[in-house]
Amino acid sequence: MKQNIYDNPIFFKEYTSLRESGVTYNDFVEQPAIKSVISTIRDKSILDLGCGTGEFAKYCIENGAWKVVGVDISENMIEKAKRENQDENIDYICESIEDLELKDLKFDIIISSLAVHSLAVHYMEDYTNLIVKVHNLLAKNGEFLFSTEHPIVTARKEMNSWVKDSDGNKLHWALDHYQEEGKREQHWYMDGVIKYHRTISTLINTLIENGFVLEKITEPQSIPVGLEKMPKLVNEKRRPSFIVIKSRKLDSLPF
Amino acid sequence: MKQNIYDNPIFFKEYTSLRESGVTYNDFVEQPAIKSVISTIRDKSILDLGCGTGEFAKYCIENGAWKVVGVDISENMIEKAKRENQDENIDYICESIEDLELKDLKFDIIISSLAVHSLAVHYMEDYTNLIVKVHNLLAKNGEFLFSTEHPIVTARKEMNSWVKDSDGNKLHWALDHYQEEGKREQHWYMDGVIKYHRTISTLINTLIENGFVLEKITEPQSIPVGLEKMPKLVNEKRRPSFIVIKSRKLDSLPF
Repeated sequence: MKQNIYDNPIFFKEYTSLRESGVTYNDFVEQPAIKSVISTIRDKSILDLGCGTGEFAKYCIENGAWKVVGVDISENMIEKAKRENQDENIDYICESIEDLELKDLKFDIIISSLAVHSLAVHYMEDYTNLIVKVHNLLAKNGEFLFSTEHPIVTARKEMNSWVKDSDGNKLHWALDHYQEEGKREQHWYMDGVIKYHRTISTLINTLIENGFVLEKITEPQSIPVGLEKMPKLVNEKRRPSFIVIKSRKLDSLPF
Repeated sequence: MKQNIYDNPIFFKEYTSLRESGVTYNDFVEQPAIKSVISTIRDKSILDLGCGTGEFAKYCIENGAWKVVGVDISENMIEKAKRENQDENIDYICESIEDLELKDLKFDIIISSLAVHSLAVHYMEDYTNLIVKVHNLLAKNGEFLFSTEHPIVTARKEMNSWVKDSDGNKLHWALDHYQEEGKREQHWYMDGVIKYHRTISTLINTLIENGFVLEKITEPQSIPVGLEKMPKLVNEKRRPSFIVIKSRKLDSLPF
């Protein structure tokens, strides 16, 4: 199912105003991790799955990429991207990953960042299908880099998993249902946002079984300025919200 | 520091009697996972780090390995191994991994199982040193397979991390301090058993950075008979106790 919460007007408004504040988990935790892990962008062709309003696509061009294709399921996002982050070397396409057809195009780097995450991995029901599709779209030895919510955070079926004392202090993070993969329903500006929980082993083994070599896993913490501007980010030390996985397409291994 | 709790007489007695019961996490969760993940043993040379009383070494010989070297820091364990699981193709050595010297010997498979875990990875202060040592001891494209306590389980500094209601029902697993790697003190038959917590990313990236390719991660659950004989193993669905990591030494990647 192709969930498109970003074309719900209430959600889009709230989300846009959050992102424009510049004070988010993405600004201080996830995006710095993605940018520190991604290989050299210069002269590369890049496919940005879930490009949202195009900030990362623009960042790639500013850092020397020769071509970026940004894909998002949300018309709202793509319109805003075309308005605010246009460039002659960026193509924006409004499409779901399931329906995406880019015949003959191959990319050096494919990225799926949860920063603007109408296509984020934790919203996708069929993870294997995504991996196979990405493999087909990558050039030889191309890179696939994605961020997703950490399995520690998606595991428990009940929402809001910090356990607090009577004064509101966070005692610990409540973990449960880890091995039960599948749907998790969440309230995030609106009811009924559907996510999919997967274990660490599923996230990683599916990549390996489908022709990728794992290069690096990052469980990011906040950059220092984030701890000043959003003091609650100190809790990222207690349990990571995100995981960033970098892998490389491999046509054959020497054994 | 080379911790050797297994030569503490009280600990050894309790531990031996637990293991001999045949009703343990190792019997129903960890060992089945190791045996299902390990590559073909036939005609292979195997180094068993933390061989304990030699059951796994004997299992390897029974399954066609041509040579097994079992290493353990505990004299008690090695004596028992020589008594109960001797074979002309097994050598038992009483030594710490830190001091282990096996000049010119190279192995097809190196295993470190927490089943008999005086050398288990979560007791080792210097993980990188272990990985480098294992890399040196492996033949070309050799396999390194190990089990360790899951970071979800080692993270929190307080012991006994199930949170229970007033009737003793387990409500959820308490997670905390995930990013603070290092010492954790535990009571396990005796006070002051020292473990080391490491994140998932450290466990995996250290392998990759030191010349291994990750092949598979397993977060095992109980086999069916375990759920009958040890009903509490149903909790392994709620959070995994162990993680099993299979990797392969790689001299060069094709990029």
